[in-house]
Amino acid sequence: MSLRELSAALRTGETTPSSAVEIALACIAETEADIRAWVHVDAEAARAAARELELVDGPRGPLWGIPVGIKDLIDVSGLPTRCGSSLRGAEPAQDDADCVRLLREAGAVIIGKTVTTEFGYFKPGPTRNPANLQHTPGGSSSGSAAAVAAGVIPLALGTQTAGSLTRPASFCGAAGFVAPIGTFSLHGVTGLSHSLDTLGFLAHSVADLHFVWNALAKRPGRDSGSDSDKPTRVLLWNGSGLGDVSTEMACALEQAATNLGSTGGHVTEWSEHDLIKQLAEAHADVMAYEAARERAAELDRPEELSGQLRELLTTGLRMTEKKYEAALQTVASSRRIVLALLDSVDAVLGPAALGAAPAGIEATGSPVLSRPWQALGFPVITIPGLRDADRMPLGLQLIGLPGREDRLFSIATKIESSLTPTPLPTFSNR
Amino acid sequence: MSLRELSAALRTGETTPSSAVEIALACIAETEADIRAWVHVDAEAARAAARELELVDGPRGPLWGIPVGIKDLIDVSGLPTRCGSSLRGAEPAQDDADCVRLLREAGAVIIGKTVTTEFGYFKPGPTRNPANLQHTPGGSSSGSAAAVAAGVIPLALGTQTAGSLTRPASFCGAAGFVAPIGTFSLHGVTGLSHSLDTLGFLAHSVADLHFVWNALAKRPGRDSGSDSDKPTRVLLWNGSGLGDVSTEMACALEQAATNLGSTGGHVTEWSEHDLIKQLAEAHADVMAYEAARERAAELDRPEELSGQLRELLTTGLRMTEKKYEAALQTVASSRRIVLALLDSVDAVLGPAALGAAPAGIEATGSPVLSRPWQALGFPVITIPGLRDADRMPLGLQLIGLPGREDRLFSIATKIESSLTPTPLPTFSNR
Repeated sequence: MSLRELSAALRTGETTPSSAVEIALACIAETEADIRAWVHVDAEAARAAARELELVDGPRGPLWGIPVGIKDLIDVSGLPTRCGSSLRGAEPAQDDADCVRLLREAGAVIIGKTVTTEFGYFKPGPTRNPANLQHTPGGSSSGSAAAVAAGVIPLALGTQTAGSLTRPASFCGAAGFVAPIGTFSLHGVTGLSHSLDTLGFLAHSVADLHFVWNALAKRPGRDSGSDSDKPTRVLLWNGSGLGDVSTEMACALEQAATNLGSTGGHVTEWSEHDLIKQLAEAHADVMAYEAARERAAELDRPEELSGQLRELLTTGLRMTEKKYEAALQTVASSRRIVLALLDSVDAVLGPAALGAAPAGIEATGSPVLSRPWQALGFPVITIPGLRDADRMPLGLQLIGLPGREDRLFSIATKIESSLTPTPLPTFSNR
Repeated sequence: MSLRELSAALRTGETTPSSAVEIALACIAETEADIRAWVHVDAEAARAAARELELVDGPRGPLWGIPVGIKDLIDVSGLPTRCGSSLRGAEPAQDDADCVRLLREAGAVIIGKTVTTEFGYFKPGPTRNPANLQHTPGGSSSGSAAAVAAGVIPLALGTQTAGSLTRPASFCGAAGFVAPIGTFSLHGVTGLSHSLDTLGFLAHSVADLHFVWNALAKRPGRDSGSDSDKPTRVLLWNGSGLGDVSTEMACALEQAATNLGSTGGHVTEWSEHDLIKQLAEAHADVMAYEAARERAAELDRPEELSGQLRELLTTGLRMTEKKYEAALQTVASSRRIVLALLDSVDAVLGPAALGAAPAGIEATGSPVLSRPWQALGFPVITIPGLRDADRMPLGLQLIGLPGREDRLFSIATKIESSLTPTPLPTFSNR
């Protein structure tokens, strides 16, 4: 059942918040031994919150009764925030993070905390990809993406510093939204890099994401219809300048572009490949430099850190200010060029990851295709729907401008509905 | 009549959009010869828009029937965007800027375009300060601030790159809100510096600003009451490290701080003076470098530019990348420190300008006290209410975190209501 269907059923009284919670808890009980998406399921608190919603007369929030999972970098009052690290103890958070409060105010019911990689970097937790348990779910929003894609919950919160939401959404087959930097308060969220950290959420479809965006951040003016009659104009970016994009992924992108073109959309090839490469490199530098300062306390106990995180932090510590400055400059000057490009088109469409989720759960795959866009801080929607011959999900990403999210959701919905659910053919290079 | 009172009267049918428009037009006719706040008043379009609102059955937007002025850097369909420069011709804009569309969707009625300084920089237009016609209204949102402060319209849009909204609000005695960078789409807004440009609005009181924020950007969850019982914690920043703050302004700040303390608030002195100075300098460098690239086309006709803008653009053109990089680095590293400081307090309270509006209309005063905060891109509220012995307005600014705007509005409202309307005493150094 989609989030919108569940919400409608809750509103008409066909179902209740309590029974939505019980269904989520039953799904967790059934799937958790395989998927391992949860750090902490707070059944008691969820049941109490549902009962409380049922007792209140008066206006109901837009997410009334919807069960939600919260990535374990985000504070939930009464539960510890373990950040996927042994360095964090069992002391419960005193307050909800602002984004959790926002969810509660909208009527959502918090089910528990979902697995994150270590401090949002690479070291995986125990979560497995629901499409194939031998494959990684991606990271760092691993548990949120897996729980949503497995149909256990209709909505989960994630965060993104590099590709921490877009990649697991693509790998698991969930729809994902990365909010533009600065949209939501990050109060109560453990960050990695203050120039790059942002909040987002995962759901079953783009239409569900749009519903949640409207619930949490929508401007309450009338719906804008003024853009919808204009032709969709999209820049097609194949991602190949940043890594080896699989043939299946290239074919998935091709299908979306062809469908857009055949329904009157204008599709133009992206030509600024150097710019994107420079942005991706600048992103990695900014992240290392800032993470070393943000997580300086953790470096005091290096034996408790993974080798990868230790390497990121020591790289950042050793980085010269000059290099960091140059990276910031690259981001700032590239922003002007991308803003100008996006003045004449609506969005950039590209692959959400280099390919389907790699086999193995000891690594979470590459975030490289998110780096350039995360550096700019623009809104990004991961569009699910396509699968390879092994039925592994392949996500696309649609990148737009801050403040133009409605237009972005409308184009992503159009693309999502144009994708055929039949698996793409097998290619010889696999 | 406040915006909220007008809105209530419109809703109950005590007044109509058409009569709200007629009153605004009559006020303009009465005051415009003195104040000169408008570049273009489109009476015909405003009357037609009001009539159209009255004919529509169905849901009414939150700003239904409210007359609004639009700063002349922002596109309004059918009117030219002259940007306070002879370089821009009379061709009308084809589309509304996104923010104008947002206003129309919320039910607002566009009255016309208000005077801006040349491309949002220093060269003043003809506008005069309604508190004393021999004094500058400040810039660059000169017309918007003057029209609101004179009581001609309840709401106007402005923009800010340095102190373009905060300073005129303070000088004219209006309440002003500078939205965090990235909140609103800037599509259709002529910018000066893409890392610093942002949108904002002016109204008669902080409560009116909060009403407009709710109308344009509010999350529709239930109102958050969870923070309101916590004591207000404010960092007091006297601004003296950046310029000569007048004794009257220092005394205005002191009054606000004393009142906060006496109602249970915690007020702590800001101690990071070097940080603020570095941020202000970095802001000026980023602005010059980016403006030179953003307005490169205008430099082809230097004889049509003011000396000040020409100097900004040539300074920016001559600036080394290295210097620009260092400025960006200062902003990024300062952000981490300020985020940490604001983790334990709610907001920073300081003077909105160095003092009351200076005499003369050939210069618009100094934006220096806005530079550090605009570099960070945080939300800022200008709180009106205090006046010096000559009855010239003195504004305070309250700076908070992106995404925590409700808390910021609530504290600013509390401060505003604590200020006594009696003029401050005259000081001997004047």
